[in-house]
Formats: sequence, C-alpha cells, structure tokens
Amino acid sequence: MRFTSETSSDGLLEQLFTLGEIPGVLWTPEGATGARPLILMGHGGGQHKKAPGVVARARRFVAECGFAVVAVDVPGHGDRPKDEEYDRIATENQARVDAGEDPAPLIAAFQALVARQTVPEWQAVLDAVQRLEHVGAGPVGYWGVSLGCGLGVPFVAAERRVRAAVLGLGGALVSAEAAGRITVPVEFLLQWDDERVPRAQGLALFDALGAKEKTLHANPGRHGEIPAFELDSTVRFFARHLR
Amino acid sequence: MRFTSETSSDGLLEQLFTLGEIPGVLWTPEGATGARPLILMGHGGGQHKKAPGVVARARRFVAECGFAVVAVDVPGHGDRPKDEEYDRIATENQARVDAGEDPAPLIAAFQALVARQTVPEWQAVLDAVQRLEHVGAGPVGYWGVSLGCGLGVPFVAAERRVRAAVLGLGGALVSAEAAGRITVPVEFLLQWDDERVPRAQGLALFDALGAKEKTLHANPGRHGEIPAFELDSTVRFFARHLR
Repeated sequence: MRFTSETSSDGLLEQLFTLGEIPGVLWTPEGATGARPLILMGHGGGQHKKAPGVVARARRFVAECGFAVVAVDVPGHGDRPKDEEYDRIATENQARVDAGEDPAPLIAAFQALVARQTVPEWQAVLDAVQRLEHVGAGPVGYWGVSLGCGLGVPFVAAERRVRAAVLGLGGALVSAEAAGRITVPVEFLLQWDDERVPRAQGLALFDALGAKEKTLHANPGRHGEIPAFELDSTVRFFARHLR
Repeated sequence: MRFTSETSSDGLLEQLFTLGEIPGVLWTPEGATGARPLILMGHGGGQHKKAPGVVARARRFVAECGFAVVAVDVPGHGDRPKDEEYDRIATENQARVDAGEDPAPLIAAFQALVARQTVPEWQAVLDAVQRLEHVGAGPVGYWGVSLGCGLGVPFVAAERRVRAAVLGLGGALVSAEAAGRITVPVEFLLQWDDERVPRAQGLALFDALGAKEKTLHANPGRHGEIPAFELDSTVRFFARHLR
C-alpha cells in the first residue's frame, strides 16, 4: 500500500493510495489514533471512488461517527485503465439491448463477472487498511447502491468482517444466491419509480436477503433520486450496528 | 369535553376525558403551556386507547418532542358499549370467512363503514383538544397501523389539519381511493411476512398514496412484529414534519 497524497479540511483527513494496481482513497478524522469502525463504499456504474455522492456520505460517516471510510475505483472506472474484456462485453451487451434484448440479465451476468475480480480486491483493501494504526481491526460496514449493490452483494456474502450493509437500486437477477448468504443487518434502498431496475426485481432482491434484520426503504422517484433524508437514516443504521 | 381523571408521572400528564359518548385520553408534558404539535393515535382492532403500544409511543412523542398526544376508543372498543350493528356484521363476516371467503374485502368494507363514524368523531376530538390552552392549534400528526390505518387513511385524506402521518399494516382494498387524496408526507410500515395483510395489498396501498414524500419501511416478521427501531424512526419523522 502506497500513499500518494494527503490533504486535510474540516477535520477530515483524505489519503489517496494505490494497492497494487487499485487506486483508492481513505478518509479518517484528522488526528485519529487507534481502531475504529471502517466503512467500505462501492461506487455506481460510470462513477469513481471520489464521486460526489461517495464523498458526501464519507464526510458524514467520519464527522458524525468518527469512522474510517475507504473507496476504490472499480476496474475500468476512475483512475484505472480501460479493461479490454469488460469493454468488449459492454459493447456486445449494448448491441443486444439495441436489438431488443432485456438488459437486466445481461447486466446481472456482467456484474457477476466483475465481482469475481472486485471481491478479492476489496478483501485485500480491507486487509491493508486495517493494518494502519489510525484504522485498525474494528467492525466493517459496506455501503453500495446500483453497481455498488451488484458488486456489494457477493462481497458482503463472502466477507465475514462486514457486520452491516446498506444496499439498494439492484435487482434479484444480480445475485439472489449470494443475497441468501447475507446474514448481517441490511438497510435496502429502493426507488419506487426506478427506470433501470424493475420494481419487482428490487423487491425480489430484498426478499432474497438471508438477513434476519433487514429493512426496505422505498421512496418515490427515479434511479438517481434517493431522498436526502435517507442519508440520515444510513448514518444512524451504521452507528447502531458498528459502534 | 369533560375531564374524568388526571395523573402525572415522569414528566407526563395523562388526562382521561369524554367528549359526548367518546372516551379519550390526552397526554402532554407536565406543566406545559401554549400551543404545540398534536398527534392523534388510532389503536388496532381489539385494542383500545390505552393499549401498551399506544402508551409507549405516546410517552416518547411527549418526552422527546414535547408534543401533545390524544387517543380515543374506536366504537365497540375499550370503554365504549358494544355496537349491535358492527357486532352483527363482524359475526356475519366471520361466518363467511369460515365458509372459505377471502377476508380482505370483508374487512375493507367493514372498516370503511366504521370510518364513516370515526372520521367526524376524530375531527370533533381535534376541535375540542386544540381549544385547550396547553395543546392549542399547532400542526397535527396521525399515527395508526392495522385498524388504525384502515380508519386513518380516510381520516388523513379528509382532515386538512393533519400535516404528516405514519400508517401501515393495511392493504389497498381498504381505501385506495382515499389514499390517493393523501398529499402530506407518510411513513408507511409494512411487515414482509404479514399473515393478515397480503404483501401485494400492502405494497398496493403504499403505491396508491397520493403523497409526493412517502417512504415505505418494510421489515421481516408477522403482523404484530414491527421492530422496535421503527419507533425511533417514527419519532424523527414527526419531529421533522411537525416542528
């Protein structure tokens, strides 16, 4: 793990790093020492580790809860090079959708393929970050919606350090089998008028989650329109389960 | 409005009253003066104005928000005499369910009938309580699930003083038309494994709500098993919209 830059503002320390070929960012309270809960955030499709929604949420987790937050670029996103195989599949899928094919199973298959790479990558990131003195081996939370849900479901299912997860804007086709293996508390966000994920598929993914404590929060609006008050709820959810 | 008893404990003033033939209870912060938000709570079927769930919620609304809370017995419940017509219909419905009929439309029709009585009753209760110096004409909230939702939907739709409502454990058959006329923010509670309200009907009632700001909170468990953390959310919801 190699730190490439470090900046501070408003009590927040931001450290950019690379771990092998994975570019990442770590946020912690300025002057933090000792172990604390850590939240890994997965960004959405076409976004990156420092997308505005990721940064805004990370700021609150750090400022209000004193947590550490880490985010990395998904392959083919942000500071990572284009991935030729993924690009080829994406182009092929687009052509099939243009020809009238249902996009949902294509997206699901694609995300499952990418997850085979991101699950071990994210586990390596946890290993590295938790070795830092100002992060330590505290409980871990996961936050990710849309692509962050598609990649997050297999990650949360596989990674025993994760104690609570916020997921959403994803459908059952993505990962119903992995969802069934998730037993930690989940807050699941669904947009009632999601133009990308059919409502029934979102409800089916919530249904498939194996967790005994899981809450569906559904709000009117399109895919990108999660209301601001849900972030308040997310902060409280993580505070309740990771502290 | 006639007060019949008054007790205080832990900073909470409890006043029993009758308004005509309606027995009710009003909770306010001890020593309160001046106008404040008021929450009307509708109890569940077979329950009454001082059912444990009603009292527990009222205590928190008063203690944490400084609100006034009022609850009254639904006809045929608590301190009210049996209602012969309602009893006859209930007995008849039970026989039809025993004979294999779907209970949902029967319950819906019955609740619609009772609501024709409770909507004006509850409006009269608001009138009377808001004339008290320690309650006043502040914003009003409504809380009610199950029967309290069946009767609450037409009440919230009809009563312009209500600015926010927590509803749930009810289905669209009850009152989809009235639900469409509700435009104030709603937090809607659904139990994913509700043995009384089919999941699709609960989702359909949420869908039918005319409110632009509405949030569905769905949790695993049966009809009576709303998790305790939802009360935290309810307190914050009312604090956000009534203050």
